[in-house]
Amino acid sequence: MRFTSEQRLDDGVLEREFTLGEIPGTLWTPASAEPAPLILTAHNNGLPKGAARLVARARYTAARGYAVASIDAAGCGDRPRSAADEQARAELRRAMQAGEPVDEVFESFVGPLVEQAVPDWRTTLDALLSLPGIGGPVGYSGWTAVGIRLAALEPRIAAASFFAGGYVPHAQREEARRITIPLLVLLQWNDEGNPRQRALDLFDAFGSKEKTLHANLGGHTGTPWFELEDTVRFFGRHLR
Amino acid sequence: MRFTSEQRLDDGVLEREFTLGEIPGTLWTPASAEPAPLILTAHNNGLPKGAARLVARARYTAARGYAVASIDAAGCGDRPRSAADEQARAELRRAMQAGEPVDEVFESFVGPLVEQAVPDWRTTLDALLSLPGIGGPVGYSGWTAVGIRLAALEPRIAAASFFAGGYVPHAQREEARRITIPLLVLLQWNDEGNPRQRALDLFDAFGSKEKTLHANLGGHTGTPWFELEDTVRFFGRHLR
Repeated sequence: MRFTSEQRLDDGVLEREFTLGEIPGTLWTPASAEPAPLILTAHNNGLPKGAARLVARARYTAARGYAVASIDAAGCGDRPRSAADEQARAELRRAMQAGEPVDEVFESFVGPLVEQAVPDWRTTLDALLSLPGIGGPVGYSGWTAVGIRLAALEPRIAAASFFAGGYVPHAQREEARRITIPLLVLLQWNDEGNPRQRALDLFDAFGSKEKTLHANLGGHTGTPWFELEDTVRFFGRHLR
Repeated sequence: MRFTSEQRLDDGVLEREFTLGEIPGTLWTPASAEPAPLILTAHNNGLPKGAARLVARARYTAARGYAVASIDAAGCGDRPRSAADEQARAELRRAMQAGEPVDEVFESFVGPLVEQAVPDWRTTLDALLSLPGIGGPVGYSGWTAVGIRLAALEPRIAAASFFAGGYVPHAQREEARRITIPLLVLLQWNDEGNPRQRALDLFDAFGSKEKTLHANLGGHTGTPWFELEDTVRFFGRHLR
């Protein structure tokens, strides 16, 4: 892991860009010298780690005493895409504009994306936990499909917060039953592109004994700011 | 309003029993001399104001700077019941033991109970707001059906937290559309006696622009303790 730049933010959080082989990442660490629990955070459907909302959430969380990391995993963010991937994304845009059903297109594109992304997240987790000042346990926040696959494979993930607004491939809907860690699931009640019933069914499917759903009125990007506070409190209960 | 007994609790909260005409009530007030926002709290389906879980919630909330009040409204708690009411309750027990559908029995018994209870709550609200040290705005917590009717009639109710595990009569399911104050709705995901879909439909029906559903795994009485903290934070956003 090689750090390529750093800046100290107003609240003392250190924000560092890194590369790990081909994987570009960002690590936010709190001002405190105490070893901090780690939270991995991924944006839905492979959106870039530099997306403003993800960065804002990461900075807020780091300021409350967590190490937070995000990467552009294989096929995600600004990483190169395969011809098949580019074609699937073009087909998705076309189908959405035409108002056609998009489930099959999403499946063909998000399914492989999750499969490709998760090994990079595991490589990153190994590297992060070898850094001084970053301790366990480890939480995960954000993109549901990657989180399910990661939690199913990775016993080091102790708690997860999922945003329900995103396509979850068939394989991860099946894997959901194997997830037993504490979960917080955020659902936007009027998220037009993401059927509400499917999100409720997924919540129902998780095998966790402790799982909480927070649903709020509003569309895909309308999650209220207080849910970020609630998410930090959720991690406080499980990672401290 | 006549106070009939008082005790000072360990955290400085003053717990006083009162009577207001035929209405028996309890008022919890915080140690602070600042005027406190008021929260009315009612247990589902007319259970007594002295029920242990209601008292524990009220004490916790008062210790965080709120005046909290509960009453046994007409027909509720230890108040006298009409012969029709006694008969409906006997029929409910019989139907539940026999595993028969109970919706009609609930409707015949909870519908009139809500109609009778709400005037007592309004009388109590008037009296409480005339006491020194109790300010507005006013919140409501607990029994959904009474809360809907009260919020529909009472512009002084500024925010409400409802527990979804209880029968909501047809009239209040209709009135739900007229409710526009901020809401927090608590749902137990596996509450056997209370159909989940009906609770989700009710949440959907509320006219409020800001409404949040918290659903947790478990049965009727299994609401996790952290939901009490969340409820206090919800009131902190709307009554402070």
